[in-house]
Amino acid sequence: MEFSSKLLENAVNEVAMLPGIGKRTAMRLVLHLLKQPSEQTQLLTEALTKMRNEIIYCQNCHNISDNTICEICNNTTRDHSIVCVVEDVRDVMAIENTRMYKGIYHVLGGKISPIEGISPSQLNIISLVEKVKQQKVSEIIFALSSTMEGDTTNFYIFKQIKEFNINVSTIARGISVGDELEYADEVTLGRSLLHRIPFESSIKSM
Amino acid sequence: MEFSSKLLENAVNEVAMLPGIGKRTAMRLVLHLLKQPSEQTQLLTEALTKMRNEIIYCQNCHNISDNTICEICNNTTRDHSIVCVVEDVRDVMAIENTRMYKGIYHVLGGKISPIEGISPSQLNIISLVEKVKQQKVSEIIFALSSTMEGDTTNFYIFKQIKEFNINVSTIARGISVGDELEYADEVTLGRSLLHRIPFESSIKSM
Repeated sequence: MEFSSKLLENAVNEVAMLPGIGKRTAMRLVLHLLKQPSEQTQLLTEALTKMRNEIIYCQNCHNISDNTICEICNNTTRDHSIVCVVEDVRDVMAIENTRMYKGIYHVLGGKISPIEGISPSQLNIISLVEKVKQQKVSEIIFALSSTMEGDTTNFYIFKQIKEFNINVSTIARGISVGDELEYADEVTLGRSLLHRIPFESSIKSM
Repeated sequence: MEFSSKLLENAVNEVAMLPGIGKRTAMRLVLHLLKQPSEQTQLLTEALTKMRNEIIYCQNCHNISDNTICEICNNTTRDHSIVCVVEDVRDVMAIENTRMYKGIYHVLGGKISPIEGISPSQLNIISLVEKVKQQKVSEIIFALSSTMEGDTTNFYIFKQIKEFNINVSTIARGISVGDELEYADEVTLGRSLLHRIPFESSIKSM
């Protein structure tokens, strides 16, 4: 693309650095901002700058927070002995939306991924093992994505905490609620058979 | 969505104001920026702010430019008597990429669209008619999208300039180069038959 203006080119290039946004989309977004009042650009850039510079991670669970201890960790009505291990803040939000979980979280900040160059030392694993060591925790629930990276991360953490003899569980894999059986992939269907549950307990959760 | 941080929520909401970007995509982009060094956010916000506040529109053709007269209008080797009427800067870039056009442009800044509330007075139409009136122009080429809004805009401008007896043309509508005939829609195919060209002139442009 040949741009008629350096300012435009620069803005498009910076927006196109974002994941999943190509040059054409970046151009569309930038031209949209140009058509809007300049206040919109100002609000956008201020919100991003403020967020990037002032955001705090909870000292206990590493979740994104406005304080040094997040609202969930600060909530005394929650069960602090159950820790749900998740990848990032989106997973915390997804689980909170279910209103089914009353324990606390531990946000790893990613998954072990040799391809993307993410090693265990870049994740918040040491502080999790430390929590287990200090016997503050009775159960760890792994709630990572059901991918090779997720399974690797689960296994890596499990190896480090199994000596402390606490309950370690993982969220159930199976047929999604509302799904037709014939369209389910065979691995998921196989696992859902293997890990079948008593019918009576399935009624209770409805 | 319930956010664990006001700063995060604010940033996500501002990014989600952009066209075609929903809350989930906005969240993904914002979390990406959080994982990158803060310099990337700084470069992005600075580029957007600078672009929005300092960008200049060419006084002659209304294209986005770094100077009061853009490079194309400043180029004395181009034919200033042929004016190609386009919607926005993306169309200028697309036509420039063909390297087939040596005239100048007139950027309208949009199309007449009652649905989106864009009236002729919001577009750069008066200055185009003025150029024609002053007899600076020998040919006007309409190169707007082949939509109802594009056709309306073409017709609106045509009515205002036809009294000045200049050549008014529109870019050819027809089968795209490389397209299979059987997949073309009937309107396009019909028009391409109606506006057929001598075979010899089609060879020349290859």
